[in-house]
Amino acid sequence: MSLIVHKYGGTSMGSVERIQNVAKRVAKWMRAGHQVVVVPSAMSGETNRLLGLAKELSANPNPRELDQIASTGEQVSSGLLAIALQDQGVDAVSYTGWQVTVHTDSAFTKARIMGIDDAKIMKDLNAGRAVVITGFQGVDPEGNITTLGRGGSDTSAVAVAAALKADECLIYTDVDGVYTTDPRVCEDARRLEKITFEEMLELASLGSKVLQIRSVEFAGKYKVKTRVLSSLTDPLIPLEQEMKSGTLITFEEDSTMEAAVISGIAFARDEAKITVIDAYQILGPIADANIDVDMIIQNQSVDAKTDFTFTVPRAEYQKALDLLKKSVQSHIGAKDILGDAKVSKVSVVGVGMRSHVGVASKMFRTLSEEGINILMISTSEIKISVVIDEKYMELAVRALHKAFELDQK
Amino acid sequence: MSLIVHKYGGTSMGSVERIQNVAKRVAKWMRAGHQVVVVPSAMSGETNRLLGLAKELSANPNPRELDQIASTGEQVSSGLLAIALQDQGVDAVSYTGWQVTVHTDSAFTKARIMGIDDAKIMKDLNAGRAVVITGFQGVDPEGNITTLGRGGSDTSAVAVAAALKADECLIYTDVDGVYTTDPRVCEDARRLEKITFEEMLELASLGSKVLQIRSVEFAGKYKVKTRVLSSLTDPLIPLEQEMKSGTLITFEEDSTMEAAVISGIAFARDEAKITVIDAYQILGPIADANIDVDMIIQNQSVDAKTDFTFTVPRAEYQKALDLLKKSVQSHIGAKDILGDAKVSKVSVVGVGMRSHVGVASKMFRTLSEEGINILMISTSEIKISVVIDEKYMELAVRALHKAFELDQK
Repeated sequence: MSLIVHKYGGTSMGSVERIQNVAKRVAKWMRAGHQVVVVPSAMSGETNRLLGLAKELSANPNPRELDQIASTGEQVSSGLLAIALQDQGVDAVSYTGWQVTVHTDSAFTKARIMGIDDAKIMKDLNAGRAVVITGFQGVDPEGNITTLGRGGSDTSAVAVAAALKADECLIYTDVDGVYTTDPRVCEDARRLEKITFEEMLELASLGSKVLQIRSVEFAGKYKVKTRVLSSLTDPLIPLEQEMKSGTLITFEEDSTMEAAVISGIAFARDEAKITVIDAYQILGPIADANIDVDMIIQNQSVDAKTDFTFTVPRAEYQKALDLLKKSVQSHIGAKDILGDAKVSKVSVVGVGMRSHVGVASKMFRTLSEEGINILMISTSEIKISVVIDEKYMELAVRALHKAFELDQK
Repeated sequence: MSLIVHKYGGTSMGSVERIQNVAKRVAKWMRAGHQVVVVPSAMSGETNRLLGLAKELSANPNPRELDQIASTGEQVSSGLLAIALQDQGVDAVSYTGWQVTVHTDSAFTKARIMGIDDAKIMKDLNAGRAVVITGFQGVDPEGNITTLGRGGSDTSAVAVAAALKADECLIYTDVDGVYTTDPRVCEDARRLEKITFEEMLELASLGSKVLQIRSVEFAGKYKVKTRVLSSLTDPLIPLEQEMKSGTLITFEEDSTMEAAVISGIAFARDEAKITVIDAYQILGPIADANIDVDMIIQNQSVDAKTDFTFTVPRAEYQKALDLLKKSVQSHIGAKDILGDAKVSKVSVVGVGMRSHVGVASKMFRTLSEEGINILMISTSEIKISVVIDEKYMELAVRALHKAFELDQK
């Protein structure tokens, strides 16, 4: 008997029929003698519908109230899944984040999990129940509902798996694993059977939407064996087959791993960049406003002025620009703040990069040959990211996928 | 400065525009210096949508999970209203039942409020905030979400008003007060400026949908000054005008009250009746299953057998019949249980009845003249109810409304 955490995304929970399929799949695992905790997302489209209502009411809706509203999507899908499981003859119960309890900090709309109580869950599991826990949410020390940000249900699932010391965390989604890049952008994209934790972390942080980055951090920190696999297969396929499908996130580079230099190409379309000339300590107000600052570059120009450039998600561009103007304009003047709201980031990722020189030059040459101008460059041990004009993004992904031979196994 | 509780029904919260109107109305009260607690229902149609999903998944969905699901409708509308209030420049915060805390028993889908903590609410009110509290729900001693049954937001509002010792509880709805009967059934129906608590209690228990009966019980028990008024007027009409509109529920019959014998006619279309012959203690299993038993009549027939007849809401007819057959069939045989799923109840209500004889005979004569057969009769001090074939219901309401001259002031 193993303790398994299942996570199902919004598409997998998107209709009554799909919820029934999830229930059939979970029932299969239960019948095989496993203990199962299920973490569902909201039904697809529901979170957007709810936030859309809030945005019709206010251009800048209060984040506490947004969480109060958005958290209901998972509460509904969890209750529905419990009912569907009972209809399959499986004893089941659903809990919200505050009922479990999932403790978080108070950063509304992007809270962090501080801890998860396991007593209630273990009691139900030991009584033979499937336990359904709302993804995406928790409760802060003052009793306010919080949400973890987009894709937060992945983090909920991995955090629950860590808290329960689960044997495996299965992330069921509408793709059948982690690909070398997004198949919608590059048709040669290929599924990976394994990927290292570090590569997955880079891919997630670089815009791959397969897993939320915090879920990968949790998986790494607590060594949670995590597998990304498809929820769209027949729910009654043999367990042995299902347990080998998808992509496993591994913690050691073993000899059986594909000896590729580059494992994947990630991209984030909706970026924006801001440059502030000759200013220090400007990130304070940005961080206080909980805006995700991504790439940061600092450069001293010939006239000894310091250019400080960083990127933010495009949705937060205007807010960041307004904050900067308010807090630093008095010192440096508005003309010294430059912005570009239409940039994208493309990254190549691979642990093989450590022992291979020439990845960067190959990347830059490939882009140059396509006539793509590089606006910013950022590197780490196992990835290289470039910021380019948004309109070249697809072209860049396809060219790099071919240049690094990711279409060939 | 007064402390006022506002309650808004689903229609009043049915769209972004209507929520904005509610916010404008509440803001008007706040600007006039009042402290306001608002209890909204779910947006119209939402509770049905959520329960519909559950019923697609199971013919007999688990009531705990139904409450987990259905309670989200009010959570969403409360968060949206808080945002709309903030957009009106009013500091506001929304709370769910468990956040307040609204304590209930564990009778899922029809829980009863046991108590409401006022500390959090008073703290916010004293800080100048409008406090939005989800109607319809609470939390049981084990931390499960509960709901109060259809129309439960009325009860939430009055219970909150009682807990806070509010000066008045305003029930905003899509009608402009309590009428002598439903205007959709009888076009001569007329709005009452005042109605006694006892009459309102009878009307509510007899099927008038203006207020949930438990809310009237709460209003009576804690002497909460309650007014039913329209949410569809211009939200910015003068406060003095609004405070005199609708129908006030009074606690004393005063000399200024309309000296009518009958104040109103109520009806409940979807009733069903069950007759058990010669059986005792049959209501035990029905009560255990939390089925609302309404009218009860017992009669000894000439052959010394005892007919025991009672009515239940039509939706619970089959369940009640099944329970009875299971629990008493062994003693008395199935042929001794008779049922009729298509009956309706029509009632005349009025405190004036106490001092007037002849109301019953006038009622029975009126129905007889219309050729309507009376199946059951039940009387109390201030009402007379009859059960009749469903197809005669509208005819009966109109005939009685005319016979008791309710169309004339």
